[in-house]
Amino acid sequence: MEAKRTIFFVSESTTIAAETLGHSLLVHFEHIKFDPVTVPFVDTVEKANETAAQINADARDKEFPPIIFSTLLEKEVRTVIMKSEGIVFDIYDAFMDRIEDALHMRSTSGISRAHGLLDDSMYNIRIDAVNYALRNDDGISTKDYDKADVILIGVSRTGKTPTCLYLGLQFGIYAANYPLTEEDLYIEYKKVPGVLQPYRDKLFGLTINPERLQKIRSERMPDSRYSSFVQCQRELAMAEYLFVSKNIPFLNITSMSVEEIAATIMHKSRLPRRAL
Amino acid sequence: MEAKRTIFFVSESTTIAAETLGHSLLVHFEHIKFDPVTVPFVDTVEKANETAAQINADARDKEFPPIIFSTLLEKEVRTVIMKSEGIVFDIYDAFMDRIEDALHMRSTSGISRAHGLLDDSMYNIRIDAVNYALRNDDGISTKDYDKADVILIGVSRTGKTPTCLYLGLQFGIYAANYPLTEEDLYIEYKKVPGVLQPYRDKLFGLTINPERLQKIRSERMPDSRYSSFVQCQRELAMAEYLFVSKNIPFLNITSMSVEEIAATIMHKSRLPRRAL
Repeated sequence: MEAKRTIFFVSESTTIAAETLGHSLLVHFEHIKFDPVTVPFVDTVEKANETAAQINADARDKEFPPIIFSTLLEKEVRTVIMKSEGIVFDIYDAFMDRIEDALHMRSTSGISRAHGLLDDSMYNIRIDAVNYALRNDDGISTKDYDKADVILIGVSRTGKTPTCLYLGLQFGIYAANYPLTEEDLYIEYKKVPGVLQPYRDKLFGLTINPERLQKIRSERMPDSRYSSFVQCQRELAMAEYLFVSKNIPFLNITSMSVEEIAATIMHKSRLPRRAL
Repeated sequence: MEAKRTIFFVSESTTIAAETLGHSLLVHFEHIKFDPVTVPFVDTVEKANETAAQINADARDKEFPPIIFSTLLEKEVRTVIMKSEGIVFDIYDAFMDRIEDALHMRSTSGISRAHGLLDDSMYNIRIDAVNYALRNDDGISTKDYDKADVILIGVSRTGKTPTCLYLGLQFGIYAANYPLTEEDLYIEYKKVPGVLQPYRDKLFGLTINPERLQKIRSERMPDSRYSSFVQCQRELAMAEYLFVSKNIPFLNITSMSVEEIAATIMHKSRLPRRAL
């Protein structure tokens, strides 16, 4: 059996940026198996030495040296990792000099901001936006739609809830969602549901392929009318007809990740990023 | 007034990786004002030409050329952007050759995976984990604690809910949360609440400085006992006493972002990343 290649994600703060970098590269090497190790909060030379020892031990044990993705701003700390026996890809090492040149400025010394001393308002807006998404999930309340940046609509199990939460957590966007029920779709045939009428400009539709919807619904309620293919197909057709005929922007999410759905909605609806 | 420097985030897919890269660099230049423009889904030479035209227009209008952070795998597309009048920082341009050398392998051609053809199981586990967090939020249900990877505990408004949602969305971690009420803290003084007893190993405490808690609670219920400084201080002291005396790992989240809280919990509790 082929040995897995060890991948270290190292940072003085969280390893999220290092992981994002690593994954955007490694995803293009489908045939290699990786063994990921995350080492956050490496913010002293001492901790860097410990991490380098761990890297070197891996390099000695395996046929190929480990690969390191890192975001280490402090040069002393970074140097320890760069001198290890791993193959190091560091964002600051690769880009910091060039960006200082481009900006005609040295970076602010210290790593305080990378350590998360966010300003209160940015933190608050994300938490507030998540709480908004929770209060306005699945049509449970429609009275705060005035405050919504966007209102996602779609039949049951088209990814509305996770997308709203992600929009709140990642971008500080106030996203409500409203499920299109059979009543909305059949009885009020071809009409935008009354409660949504005043917010036509905020609506964004989500749809999915019927095969996929059937699979998702079957996990929740197997062998039910709700999860039958015919039912899924009918609801989706009615919902899509509504989107098209009422000129509501919409998206088929069948093979999209939550990030991609959220980014696409941001783009198509020209929503402002309130936080990142 | 100083003009803002335009920053473009360009990608053939979502711009999330490009934004992560850009922000991890720009956060260290506190004194410069930036004007961000996101351009996702630039996946053809034609779209790249349009984007380059937008970049060049900005370069002509402003004193300094715009800065471009990009993740453009396809060389033809990338070349168009690299030849624009912006200053381009592209992840693939910077790292792809070196990582191909390190892996002794060419990257898989095509950008299908970057386009989000995730495997089903990874998508499902994140959605399932988010739904788990919603069902097990704020102590509303405790019967599924067997399935929890971690159970966050803390007094009201210590960031439990957003952290659980983030752990689910980002890492596929099943995170429940249980609010420590006055009853838990006073009447059952110094005891782990009965419902949590069987899950001692899964508990993780969140705490916060009383000044900050007072501010957060005051936004919700001003001039109440709940938001009084004395009350905040007392509840936090009791909760922290519980964490320390029962050897429950805990974290003071006062100046941390949700990402940092989540990453720290992952690290301290050695939780496996189920998705990224």
